Amino acid sequence: MGCDMDIFLGAKNASREFSSVGSNKKDELLMKISELIDKQRKFILTENAKDIDYAVKNSLKESLLDRLLLNEKRIDSMINGVMEIQKQDDPVGSIEMGTTRPNGLIIEKIRVPLGVVGIIYESRPNVTVDAAALCIKSGNVCILRGGKEAVHSNLALGKIIKDAIISANLNEYIVNVVEDPNREFLNKMLKAKGFVDLIIPRGGESLISYVTEHSLIPVIKHDKGVCHVYIDNFALKDMAINIALNAKVSRPGVCNAMETLLVHHAVANEFLTEMVEIYHNNSVELVGCKRAQKFNHVKPATEDDWYTEYLSLKLSIKVVDSLYEAIDHINKYGSGHSEAIVTENYSNAMEFLKRVDAAAVYVNASTRFTDGGEFGLGAEVGISTQKLHCRGPMGVKDLTTTKYIIFGNGQVRV
Amino acid sequence: MGCDMDIFLGAKNASREFSSVGSNKKDELLMKISELIDKQRKFILTENAKDIDYAVKNSLKESLLDRLLLNEKRIDSMINGVMEIQKQDDPVGSIEMGTTRPNGLIIEKIRVPLGVVGIIYESRPNVTVDAAALCIKSGNVCILRGGKEAVHSNLALGKIIKDAIISANLNEYIVNVVEDPNREFLNKMLKAKGFVDLIIPRGGESLISYVTEHSLIPVIKHDKGVCHVYIDNFALKDMAINIALNAKVSRPGVCNAMETLLVHHAVANEFLTEMVEIYHNNSVELVGCKRAQKFNHVKPATEDDWYTEYLSLKLSIKVVDSLYEAIDHINKYGSGHSEAIVTENYSNAMEFLKRVDAAAVYVNASTRFTDGGEFGLGAEVGISTQKLHCRGPMGVKDLTTTKYIIFGNGQVRV
Repeated sequence: MGCDMDIFLGAKNASREFSSVGSNKKDELLMKISELIDKQRKFILTENAKDIDYAVKNSLKESLLDRLLLNEKRIDSMINGVMEIQKQDDPVGSIEMGTTRPNGLIIEKIRVPLGVVGIIYESRPNVTVDAAALCIKSGNVCILRGGKEAVHSNLALGKIIKDAIISANLNEYIVNVVEDPNREFLNKMLKAKGFVDLIIPRGGESLISYVTEHSLIPVIKHDKGVCHVYIDNFALKDMAINIALNAKVSRPGVCNAMETLLVHHAVANEFLTEMVEIYHNNSVELVGCKRAQKFNHVKPATEDDWYTEYLSLKLSIKVVDSLYEAIDHINKYGSGHSEAIVTENYSNAMEFLKRVDAAAVYVNASTRFTDGGEFGLGAEVGISTQKLHCRGPMGVKDLTTTKYIIFGNGQVRV
Repeated sequence: MGCDMDIFLGAKNASREFSSVGSNKKDELLMKISELIDKQRKFILTENAKDIDYAVKNSLKESLLDRLLLNEKRIDSMINGVMEIQKQDDPVGSIEMGTTRPNGLIIEKIRVPLGVVGIIYESRPNVTVDAAALCIKSGNVCILRGGKEAVHSNLALGKIIKDAIISANLNEYIVNVVEDPNREFLNKMLKAKGFVDLIIPRGGESLISYVTEHSLIPVIKHDKGVCHVYIDNFALKDMAINIALNAKVSRPGVCNAMETLLVHHAVANEFLTEMVEIYHNNSVELVGCKRAQKFNHVKPATEDDWYTEYLSLKLSIKVVDSLYEAIDHINKYGSGHSEAIVTENYSNAMEFLKRVDAAAVYVNASTRFTDGGEFGLGAEVGISTQKLHCRGPMGVKDLTTTKYIIFGNGQVRV
């Protein structure tokens, strides 16, 4: 494995030291990183231009180009991101539970860093800085493997972060940005048992399936969001329209945007007649079930549509006979991300909250709020759609684990 | 998949209902199970005798026979186990965090069952009852796949549990005990994405590796325990002897027993001269490093020895030059289970607690205390040696996940 093995070994060794570095030192490092990014704007923009050049020459999609692009304003927001993370509470060392047992043993459960975290992501170079800052704050060493389309930008940011680490007199392996055009490194990382403690894949479905299938290391998926809004027969019409519009059009390319609208048949006529025109005026392409197709602009939906995360101005609409049909549809086709009901009926709201199996379940609010910042948790590594370890926005605290420490005075077990 | 698919689908559907069944109903079911086990003692013993017969005819190991065997006393302790679990707090529905955001959204993080839990285990039939009871208490549906050597006992216990479920008017798929002599079912379960939420393998290294490599579903490993006791140069001799003896001989076949003893060179002569004789008198076979071989009864250890979980009256001994050599040895060869230092030196104790990377780290106590009951957590599914989701004894609460529920009054995101 040669050079790659050096990274895994270097990272593991660095994590042994870094896990017990105090908050002051970690905050000092974050401060240095934000200062160096500010000083090196020109270097960052020059390297980013190479990625943009490559993307243009290879006719990559407009949306990808937008995600790749860095400018002064985006560098500002990168710096702000680091400073926000620096201001968060350090979870390491907090005592989650403590007790003295009848035999005198004092048992404490304390929060400690995970160790080495591998993050696999695509296109947006700001993830490099965000992920590094979140790992530093939580005392973890990270290995960052971005997409090949952003390699110049990522390596430039990685170099700046490494300079900051060295000037803070810390181990240079604390943050490792790697170049990996052919998944060669990725494949080694997925098998690096004993060196890497957690793998976080962020990106498209195929990347995430690939990682899940091949990893020998625990994975926290940040999967797709097939989110629903259900308009109950007891919904207030204006509120329903506002939420159904916001959940779809405010930012269609993100995971907490709605992909399927469910409408109770008793209010379908009144609500959908108006709603489809609003969507049409907002350039939303509509597909739907038989009963939804009776309304203007609604084309037939296929079975596949109900499973699809469009990430664009497209929406599928289904008319349902009951609250329970809506819940069953969501539990069958949803991805366990964010789901909402609009209703004034107390019992329906409570049933929906109880029975829908998802990271975030809303009454009378847009699904678009699922986000670390909006939930008051600070910056996030992503939104976990799995049930193990953390579910929903994954913040600094979720990058830690626990350890029992036990103070005895000679106890043995009888 | 035919019949197997019915189990996965049946289990998933059952979990949708069972996750919102209240504590009273779940406790009633646990009570019924303990009553039925008591009534059906004869049936259990008859079926167990078939497994014992098979084991004797196939000359299975004595230690396996002992683990397989059920008798009146072991049935008593099965019943007590269920009653203990029934008395524990129900974690489902507890509110972990709650806040009102500036925009008026009320956000709560509540504890919910995981859904469907697959448990893979070997030999001991009481695991069937323990695992079922823990899953019931935490609102989970379980699929229990025991070893083929215990199939009659496990199916008998599964039938009794199913009878109790039916008489409590609950869905019969809440507990599913399956027969799987050739890993056919196991292989299907490891791929049953969308139906099974968690896989817990309990057993030997090869079973656990197999599951980790082939599973598409998140796994919580209950891996081996290569546990160490380090006798520091500031240890009290009598305490060191007590702990080093207890950690090895009190129950050598369990995962929290010590496998390697580390001794600071400055006290090696005084401590080991006496200790090796005590081990010898307790029938402990000794292997060790060059310096340890100078003492009576100590044969040479191989590199493999340091990685080995003997689970028997065998011990490897290493003389080290410093606290840090001990810590490095543990972090390299240990399995992250339970580690202890014996010392009167405050700074050495704190360094050891901080730098050793394991689920439980002890000062001046035997490693043998790592156990849900001893930690005051109640019954456990096992001891997790991984860092994700839960680490150390895995109790009822660790069989749950969380869900954000959000109460709005029409909020949309700007």
